[in-house]
Amino acid sequence: MDLELAKRLSQPAATKIILIVLDGLGGLSQASTLRSELEKAQIPNLDRLAVRSEVGLTVPVGAGITPGSGPGHLALFGYDPLRFDIGRGVLEATGIDFALTATDVAARGNFCTLDGNGNISDRRAGRVATETSAKLVERLRQITIPGVEVFVEPVREHRFVLVLRGNGLGDAVTTTDPQHEGVPPLAARGADAPSTRTAEVVNEFVEKAHALLKDQEQANGLVLRGFANYPELPQFPDIWGVRAAALAVYPMYRGLAKLAGMTPIACPGGMTEQIHLIRQNWDNFDYFFVHYKKTDAAGEDGNFEQKCHALEEFDSHVPELLGLGADVLMIAGDHSTPALMAAHSWHPVPFLLHSKYCRDGNAEHFNEQECIKGSLGIFPAVDVMPLAMAHAMRFAKYGA
Amino acid sequence: MDLELAKRLSQPAATKIILIVLDGLGGLSQASTLRSELEKAQIPNLDRLAVRSEVGLTVPVGAGITPGSGPGHLALFGYDPLRFDIGRGVLEATGIDFALTATDVAARGNFCTLDGNGNISDRRAGRVATETSAKLVERLRQITIPGVEVFVEPVREHRFVLVLRGNGLGDAVTTTDPQHEGVPPLAARGADAPSTRTAEVVNEFVEKAHALLKDQEQANGLVLRGFANYPELPQFPDIWGVRAAALAVYPMYRGLAKLAGMTPIACPGGMTEQIHLIRQNWDNFDYFFVHYKKTDAAGEDGNFEQKCHALEEFDSHVPELLGLGADVLMIAGDHSTPALMAAHSWHPVPFLLHSKYCRDGNAEHFNEQECIKGSLGIFPAVDVMPLAMAHAMRFAKYGA
Repeated sequence: MDLELAKRLSQPAATKIILIVLDGLGGLSQASTLRSELEKAQIPNLDRLAVRSEVGLTVPVGAGITPGSGPGHLALFGYDPLRFDIGRGVLEATGIDFALTATDVAARGNFCTLDGNGNISDRRAGRVATETSAKLVERLRQITIPGVEVFVEPVREHRFVLVLRGNGLGDAVTTTDPQHEGVPPLAARGADAPSTRTAEVVNEFVEKAHALLKDQEQANGLVLRGFANYPELPQFPDIWGVRAAALAVYPMYRGLAKLAGMTPIACPGGMTEQIHLIRQNWDNFDYFFVHYKKTDAAGEDGNFEQKCHALEEFDSHVPELLGLGADVLMIAGDHSTPALMAAHSWHPVPFLLHSKYCRDGNAEHFNEQECIKGSLGIFPAVDVMPLAMAHAMRFAKYGA
Repeated sequence: MDLELAKRLSQPAATKIILIVLDGLGGLSQASTLRSELEKAQIPNLDRLAVRSEVGLTVPVGAGITPGSGPGHLALFGYDPLRFDIGRGVLEATGIDFALTATDVAARGNFCTLDGNGNISDRRAGRVATETSAKLVERLRQITIPGVEVFVEPVREHRFVLVLRGNGLGDAVTTTDPQHEGVPPLAARGADAPSTRTAEVVNEFVEKAHALLKDQEQANGLVLRGFANYPELPQFPDIWGVRAAALAVYPMYRGLAKLAGMTPIACPGGMTEQIHLIRQNWDNFDYFFVHYKKTDAAGEDGNFEQKCHALEEFDSHVPELLGLGADVLMIAGDHSTPALMAAHSWHPVPFLLHSKYCRDGNAEHFNEQECIKGSLGIFPAVDVMPLAMAHAMRFAKYGA
């Protein structure tokens, strides 16, 4: 939906919307049982809810397109993921809770090993230990470049984040990672004037960093990629006219929601705490985004049983979630992560919307097969938010 | 899908994709049996395959739009048929295996009968015999026009193809066919400078042709329509990163694929030979487009039983097709040709995609009714190629 239209139709109402994202929700059938994770898991509460809800399958980005976490969530928040793009560097910075500002360019960094000739001999520096890597990041913080603030932040193993802060820095900068070994890191190049300025800063940073890392055996070099400016997303509360809270255990999802203008609420304790915090903040917000990671983690590990367990664990919270009394409760996924594939996939994702105004009774369970029968059919994930607004009586009539 | 995005997401893989187009596949129920061609035909192999595949119905161009063969195929190749248009003249030239080049303008020609006043008395020249027509075409080949190469090619009965080759020829040229009798052929007119140049050439050609045809009783005149430049299609192998082969018995389909940049492989012998040639060329290509005409021919003839036979004949080849071991095998149609209508129609077309990563088990048979239940739903034919790419592991993840 065009966001200007969304803004025009939005109207106030004393209603509450909850969106639960079960990360990587959708799956595929096991060859041995012909059942998907959702079909095999014992999820009586979700099954019962599906019968009383509108169900369907969301297409996160488009036919055949496997989304990363960024586009998968943006779509559920109502942003066309083909139009609004969040760069890798920003996502990495967000993932470590780094507070990005409007003048930042962020990049993902990897320590690597350089041989005597300056060629890359190991693109991951032997997966250098996180503690070692953190100390090297400390060392890189000495680097200063005139006119630019430089931030280096540790992530895990060989990975770190570089943030350059300064006016007029562009992000159309080529990677310094040649993507294979036996060759030296590339020089960064900018595609326009502001990005050329960034590239110069980057090349200066790399030169100084290499001098500081010279004594290292493993991590004596680095490469940078995914340069990205702070994304100027139209703000979620302005578009939809809702006060929006984000409850995510993992920083990346909290950060994504923050980029969209939602208010992050720290909830390290998982679903029980998330539900508790929703109740506590009930009067302060109209919309609650709740992120549940365990389904995706198990899927990415290719662990079918574990994904079933994650679904069952979530299912046990459903009565409590219903007890909150939201006007609109949605159970969605940002993409499929079939355990069979041990990776994100393009397959449409089961979706459920519960409200007073549902065309329900089509599905008998909450799974891939049953959701096909639902009143929502197979539909773009970007339509989730308009649907929620309608069911929450928060959209005015279009036209006379 | 935007073709630039397709290009960006495409990645190499050692996988094979086969697309079988059963021309005019979709049908409508017979009043006497309440069964469509697919429901009545004995197609046990397709039925079994449908159970183990993702199924759905493709919308070739848009709701209510009956496609010609051009748009029907372009959509299955991933081209938005509303954006990429192949003119009638080019399609006619392609249909007779004429090797068009970038500087050509092609048009469809009809011999007609002119009365003593120069008015058209028969728009098809009494459907003049193909042999006579061919001789007249020979005669027209004498015509020369300075600065332009002129090709006249016989088709069948009153139909022929005119190709003008030369730099700066436009195709925004009005038809010379008044579409009814009792009036003289029209003069061609161009809408812009290059097309005005073409129109002048056309009018000169017609004048000289009429002089050469004066002695004829039936075919003493001609009209021209469907002027079309060589279409500049982004090339299929560049977009999707696959080496693509086209196996079609009829020249028009082979020609269409060739315009898209596929490599045509001659296969006059039909399905058995087509399968043999796929096996023979297995290592040289990643994508095989196979065209099967008999379903459409029977449909166009309004012959319900014959269309069932054509389906049954194809069905008998399915085990052998599966035996090729493609990673993605698709059975599709370019449009529906219900025997009931004896013509192309707008109805969505049964579609099946078989791979390792299928949400299967929704349909019990391969027909219009069962495909509605499938995991793909009713979807645009232009999504077929992205889906194939995904299932073939040839699409990278979108976004971080």
